[in-house]
Amino acid sequence: MARLRVHAFTITLDGVGTGTDQRADAPFGDGVDGLHDWMEPSFRGEGTGVDHAAFLAGDENVGATIMGRNMFGPVRGAWPDEQWRGWWGEDPPYHHDVFVLTHYPRPSLPMDGGTTFHFLAAAPSEVLDRATEAAGGKDVRLGGGVATVRAFLAEGLVDELNLVIAPILAGAGERLFDGLPDVPAGYRVASVVPGGSGAVHVQVVRR
Amino acid sequence: MARLRVHAFTITLDGVGTGTDQRADAPFGDGVDGLHDWMEPSFRGEGTGVDHAAFLAGDENVGATIMGRNMFGPVRGAWPDEQWRGWWGEDPPYHHDVFVLTHYPRPSLPMDGGTTFHFLAAAPSEVLDRATEAAGGKDVRLGGGVATVRAFLAEGLVDELNLVIAPILAGAGERLFDGLPDVPAGYRVASVVPGGSGAVHVQVVRR
Repeated sequence: MARLRVHAFTITLDGVGTGTDQRADAPFGDGVDGLHDWMEPSFRGEGTGVDHAAFLAGDENVGATIMGRNMFGPVRGAWPDEQWRGWWGEDPPYHHDVFVLTHYPRPSLPMDGGTTFHFLAAAPSEVLDRATEAAGGKDVRLGGGVATVRAFLAEGLVDELNLVIAPILAGAGERLFDGLPDVPAGYRVASVVPGGSGAVHVQVVRR
Repeated sequence: MARLRVHAFTITLDGVGTGTDQRADAPFGDGVDGLHDWMEPSFRGEGTGVDHAAFLAGDENVGATIMGRNMFGPVRGAWPDEQWRGWWGEDPPYHHDVFVLTHYPRPSLPMDGGTTFHFLAAAPSEVLDRATEAAGGKDVRLGGGVATVRAFLAEGLVDELNLVIAPILAGAGERLFDGLPDVPAGYRVASVVPGGSGAVHVQVVRR
């Protein structure tokens, strides 16, 4: 049975996943400097230990990805044209079908390396059905941003939520756990493990 | 120079310090079962390691305590009488002056063992002045609840905030970091250390 998994989703100690004023030159907004420091060594090819394992885990047995539009790019509202091809370059690091939630569908966008972006104006459960089919028996990874993860959590569609708590305070921004009163009834904390970086890795699973 | 310190202040992974419907038989409200599991061994006299050290640290070099009224007891609004003498029994574990913030002052209440409760309807800075004087050169400890810590943090009066993050989700309740946009400008995370219990100990200090 395919599972929907969130990996390496990083929040501040005060619960913020995206800072204020997210924009093209600040994909995670302001006030969250250091949010992803824990994965910097992995990006440099020098990752070790718990942090590196968490970095890698999100690629294991994943056959499709779902993300919110803000994780695809900074364009808001109707697409002015189809020039914007994602934050991720011409050879995105997915290599499978990626389903982008948006109120503004556009034609599917095949990229180099096997990644194809599909743009869907649909409910989370429908998007999950499409992604599950595309995953061909593997799991589906749910990316960000905050609103997207929250929408899938609210409907109880997430099977495994691997969070990282970064040792910083944001003060303001989008909080992952705002407006999710029913999550504790469906989910429990399975483990809390410190990484060498000062970040803490938390796994939340279904009860 | 006397410092204002918060110790063993415990929040859930989703940031909640007090659950819903706080009342006489549920001082921390509903939805936060397990919040203080990390200190249970210490209460039984079997504490060890990081958790136990955090439990003890709050008593070191403390000459006065400040707390919100909800940490003194469950009575809301005007005191119906002066029968309620606190959650803490006849010999409270303070053994010094305790300043209770309330909109409804009442006469000071001397208890056994050297604890005297004082009831103040005053601004945080005034209460801190009173407590600092009473502490006689030692530090002042700031207890809870959430609203009280938030009020002192908002005014930049806290010198050291020792938080504990419990491995549970509350879903709803009072969040410590709600409405504190300026805290990151004045404070930084000094350390993040796991306890043996699954709780994580976080020290926040002035920049």
